[in-house]
Amino acid sequence: MDAYEIMPGGSLSGLRKTSRPTVPLPAHGLRIRMLAASLNARDLSVMCGQFHALPSHPLIPLVDGCGEVVETGKKVSRFRPGDRVIPAYYPNWTDGTISAQKTAISFGAQVDGTLTTEMLGLEEAFVRAPAHLDASEAATLCCAGLTAWNALFVMGAARPGARVLLLGTGNVSLMALVLAKAAGLFVIITSSQDGRLQRASDLGADETVNYHLNPDWHDEVLRLTSGNGVDLVVEVGGERTLPHSLKATAFGGRVVVVGRLSGGDIAVSAGTLIGGGRSLNGLTAGSRTMLEDLVRFVEINRIRPIIDRSFAFENAADAYEHFVSERPFGKVSITIGS
Amino acid sequence: MDAYEIMPGGSLSGLRKTSRPTVPLPAHGLRIRMLAASLNARDLSVMCGQFHALPSHPLIPLVDGCGEVVETGKKVSRFRPGDRVIPAYYPNWTDGTISAQKTAISFGAQVDGTLTTEMLGLEEAFVRAPAHLDASEAATLCCAGLTAWNALFVMGAARPGARVLLLGTGNVSLMALVLAKAAGLFVIITSSQDGRLQRASDLGADETVNYHLNPDWHDEVLRLTSGNGVDLVVEVGGERTLPHSLKATAFGGRVVVVGRLSGGDIAVSAGTLIGGGRSLNGLTAGSRTMLEDLVRFVEINRIRPIIDRSFAFENAADAYEHFVSERPFGKVSITIGS
Amino acid sequence: MDAYEIMPGGSLSGLRKTSRPTVPLPAHGLRIRMLAASLNARDLSVMCGQFHALPSHPLIPLVDGCGEVVETGKKVSRFRPGDRVIPAYYPNWTDGTISAQKTAISFGAQVDGTLTTEMLGLEEAFVRAPAHLDASEAATLCCAGLTAWNALFVMGAARPGARVLLLGTGNVSLMALVLAKAAGLFVIITSSQDGRLQRASDLGADETVNYHLNPDWHDEVLRLTSGNGVDLVVEVGGERTLPHSLKATAFGGRVVVVGRLSGGDIAVSAGTLIGGGRSLNGLTAGSRTMLEDLVRFVEINRIRPIIDRSFAFENAADAYEHFVSERPFGKVSITIGS
Amino acid sequence: MDAYEIMPGGSLSGLRKTSRPTVPLPAHGLRIRMLAASLNARDLSVMCGQFHALPSHPLIPLVDGCGEVVETGKKVSRFRPGDRVIPAYYPNWTDGTISAQKTAISFGAQVDGTLTTEMLGLEEAFVRAPAHLDASEAATLCCAGLTAWNALFVMGAARPGARVLLLGTGNVSLMALVLAKAAGLFVIITSSQDGRLQRASDLGADETVNYHLNPDWHDEVLRLTSGNGVDLVVEVGGERTLPHSLKATAFGGRVVVVGRLSGGDIAVSAGTLIGGGRSLNGLTAGSRTMLEDLVRFVEINRIRPIIDRSFAFENAADAYEHFVSERPFGKVSITIGS
Repeated sequence: MDAYEIMPGGSLSGLRKTSRPTVPLPAHGLRIRMLAASLNARDLSVMCGQFHALPSHPLIPLVDGCGEVVETGKKVSRFRPGDRVIPAYYPNWTDGTISAQKTAISFGAQVDGTLTTEMLGLEEAFVRAPAHLDASEAATLCCAGLTAWNALFVMGAARPGARVLLLGTGNVSLMALVLAKAAGLFVIITSSQDGRLQRASDLGADETVNYHLNPDWHDEVLRLTSGNGVDLVVEVGGERTLPHSLKATAFGGRVVVVGRLSGGDIAVSAGTLIGGGRSLNGLTAGSRTMLEDLVRFVEINRIRPIIDRSFAFENAADAYEHFVSERPFGKVSITIGS
Repeated sequence: MDAYEIMPGGSLSGLRKTSRPTVPLPAHGLRIRMLAASLNARDLSVMCGQFHALPSHPLIPLVDGCGEVVETGKKVSRFRPGDRVIPAYYPNWTDGTISAQKTAISFGAQVDGTLTTEMLGLEEAFVRAPAHLDASEAATLCCAGLTAWNALFVMGAARPGARVLLLGTGNVSLMALVLAKAAGLFVIITSSQDGRLQRASDLGADETVNYHLNPDWHDEVLRLTSGNGVDLVVEVGGERTLPHSLKATAFGGRVVVVGRLSGGDIAVSAGTLIGGGRSLNGLTAGSRTMLEDLVRFVEINRIRPIIDRSFAFENAADAYEHFVSERPFGKVSITIGS
Repeated sequence: MDAYEIMPGGSLSGLRKTSRPTVPLPAHGLRIRMLAASLNARDLSVMCGQFHALPSHPLIPLVDGCGEVVETGKKVSRFRPGDRVIPAYYPNWTDGTISAQKTAISFGAQVDGTLTTEMLGLEEAFVRAPAHLDASEAATLCCAGLTAWNALFVMGAARPGARVLLLGTGNVSLMALVLAKAAGLFVIITSSQDGRLQRASDLGADETVNYHLNPDWHDEVLRLTSGNGVDLVVEVGGERTLPHSLKATAFGGRVVVVGRLSGGDIAVSAGTLIGGGRSLNGLTAGSRTMLEDLVRFVEINRIRPIIDRSFAFENAADAYEHFVSERPFGKVSITIGS
Repeated sequence: MDAYEIMPGGSLSGLRKTSRPTVPLPAHGLRIRMLAASLNARDLSVMCGQFHALPSHPLIPLVDGCGEVVETGKKVSRFRPGDRVIPAYYPNWTDGTISAQKTAISFGAQVDGTLTTEMLGLEEAFVRAPAHLDASEAATLCCAGLTAWNALFVMGAARPGARVLLLGTGNVSLMALVLAKAAGLFVIITSSQDGRLQRASDLGADETVNYHLNPDWHDEVLRLTSGNGVDLVVEVGGERTLPHSLKATAFGGRVVVVGRLSGGDIAVSAGTLIGGGRSLNGLTAGSRTMLEDLVRFVEINRIRPIIDRSFAFENAADAYEHFVSERPFGKVSITIGS
């Protein structure tokens, strides 16, 4: 098999293609011919070593992926050769609430990931891909897709008709946008560029806010919600956005914190939190059961994730470059195999 | 003001038009010029006396309605003249969980209802009508609409992607169908007539089952859900349908019982309930807060309730006749005023 | 190892002692020297074949048990030799919501159980026993204890101060009594015998009802709750008790159905269910995570399960006899080993 | 009637006794002869003007109180003369979730409070006092009691056996201690004084931590919870304690923020929040329904709130002094009337 490796804590230039020997399949194992992978912000954190418990040896990167089962261990019961599968973000988090043990390992970080022609894993760590999606589209669900799902419907507990604020047009926000609209929510989305806001509107956003033109953009969110604020913010920013997010949140509302693009601790106004009965909820990806729920929802509603651009396996480094420097609108995908 | 009256426990022929004097407005009261009303199965129960705590004097019937505020008491703060409003099903159930006290009174049953040119009520008992609906459409939300909403999203706790079974194409089921699809659920609906199933498909139903052709229709539901059954049944039938509904329900699923067209006690299989961790949940309409949530959802998703046919106020008796004998597909509406 | 075997679908006289060869330990396996087991009503159902998917070969019966780990497979991480453990009721239900797959197998029914000197199982299927309990006491938690826990706090969702009705003084009810009181609930318990009611009072029951003297005992429950009824009934009876239980339940309350001592379908009053927003919730035992929660609660509150009588391993048949014929007050325990 | 008044934004020396005329009772009003009141930290904030929307005219202070109904308006249905009642913290928050409108007014802040011989209010704003408590004890529930209840069981959603961390031995923490133990929780409490920790142990605390001797007291909390951390922190501190509280919280756990003794914004570690799926939940007091639930729980479990010292109505200024300067252990109460 061919695979890319990085040295965690290195740099983008450290990405190199390698060849690894084929290994035997355990009783509960799947051998998967990979068809596509895609990039997420966390993969840059892994690359530059800003991630917990990274190995000190070369690692196959990326967690988002899709492949076809080509061989099954003799005790495998959930899949058959020919099935298309996607990995669970955390191979040990099948079900139930979060724990340290369940989230100790994720693909493409503490263990090898998806940027390979062949992946081996226990069947418990995989989920059937949606039938109506091609491999590149399916390879967007396990990280940004799952994070958006958990933020909206599990940790965020958004009910039909809830008002949701999405910050920017990054991967999680765009995923949240299409999921939220398919679930009947009211969506306000922000960006610094009117062109991107227009594209978000085309995808169904009910209202848009240009935060470059409105530095106090929470006031605009309040105006768009009759002064009440939103029920839920999917907060992908950090210490620069959170004070605004909290002010844009309704009494009893939640700010679900799913990422942190800007650095440093977050300063939270205790008065806003307390006086309005507001909450700040952290989350990281989700369980395999949540991913299965997402897959079902995507299938029922014929949702198609947004792909910005696809690169061939040979040009994986270009995909990284594009992801880093071009502010893609949608996922950056790498197709693997013919 | 002109109004229709019935004598609870009487018959359809007892419906008669009358004139009532205008009364002064209390400090928290609204005077409402009614624009539309509509019929529900519960109104027939009230008519023939099969309803709890009915008065022994003439009563203005119907609970579904929509009108325009023409005068407000001096302490009214939520509405202004010109606002279009719909009544809450239970005037005393504003918020929180159900109680005997909150559900003791409903419009058109224990107190006067909506089949009148002018309605008086406390502002606490009314909700703003959705802006994009005409009065007849808005006059469908407080009974069938609210019941469907509570069944799906409050008592039923349906999450996006949940599989829902709707029984027949009566008012609650049709409302549940359009609400469920707007919220991204998977909907299976039953009917004894292929023509009605086709119309349900046109409204978005994912799968249909003709229970006349499939007496063991739960088997068909299991087949359509890969053998798992549905997460939720909105059970509007009774002792003839419930055993099938329970068999069509997945492990951990719920049958929400919202009405009972056929008579007698319901026979429940304890083994099915226990072994599968299934639930049977009763409900009746809902709170004003639920109705406000429904109105918001309807507005966000530009939902239009289905009207079968409208009748003029003068021909209210014909509307009753049509409702009883013609198996309407959608609501039977009565327009009031010019 | 020595073990008892039954032939499912046989009779009590079929219980016989046998010897089985020692088998090698799998990588994730535990070898457990059993110290105690105890009897539950479901073990009689297994014995007489009234249980789903029973094997057609001899079976080691019982699910409640406690033992000491004497050997661990080479990949075991949760336990060490010397740890005292109790089995999870369903070895495949670790976490999350119920499913057919998770509940397909339970110890002492579809696979061998605890009435043996040595038990082999995967570590995933066991839980640490509470430190302050002896083996017989710990051997009461995985069936009656877990069922009571799930009924009260998971499916029943009882909040502190909730009013709970317990039916009779069988194993689940007595467990529920001590758990409920330690959690600050208000408990009403029924029995046909004043002596048993007195013992329940001594264990903390707030109110008692002799259903023999009060055939319409729901009226008594209503009287003891200012006419409101209870928030939760742990319904262990069946078609004879359920109509009363439903009438004894408050608006918005739940009847959690956990067993069914008397036969036949249950007749449910749809009007009572619907009009009061009441629910009927089935459940069967629970997950390993629930059992771990129970163990923690039992430890924190120094709860001691009630043992009616203990029998030596040699006299297991006498334990069965006592369980069947003597209406024990508390668990019937079998001690194993020295 | 005699009453004390303060000028919000003034100082402690501004407390003065005054006499007010008797006013007629509205139809839904209660005239209440006050028996006791008690002090809370928020009353100091009101005094010195650090509270939202305070009036610019003299105000009767305090929200905690207990009195006897002496006259009822002609439409009052929930109370009769002779009933002992306590106020709801927010007179307009009867039920359901928090909103700006429901929390706009609280007694002793935006409107007159309890430090008076006679209080007038609408029946909707009052709750029956627990029968087994004297007036001073009952006059501790509506602020510190309700806040602790909401923090533990509503916003905190603590389940039986949950591990809870309480910070210091102030009013909310001591209330939370006795409530938590009566509900079967595991309680760790902190203080800077061993003597106060001993008294907390005597009240049932399972573990104690001297934060003066352990500046990194979160490490001690982790040690006491096998390295896992607690499920819930009732955070009454602020920017100095919160970083520790968050580190002391288990994966998936919550820090409920109910007050803020130290000033400034709170710095939150986004990594800790996100990586562990942790939450920060603000709350302020609670609804009347929550207070009724608390009263029921207090009655069922015969809970007696802890009174540090009582002062006569004539010496109300001394009560304020004692509250401010003496670090009471328990509530500071003022008895009113003979």
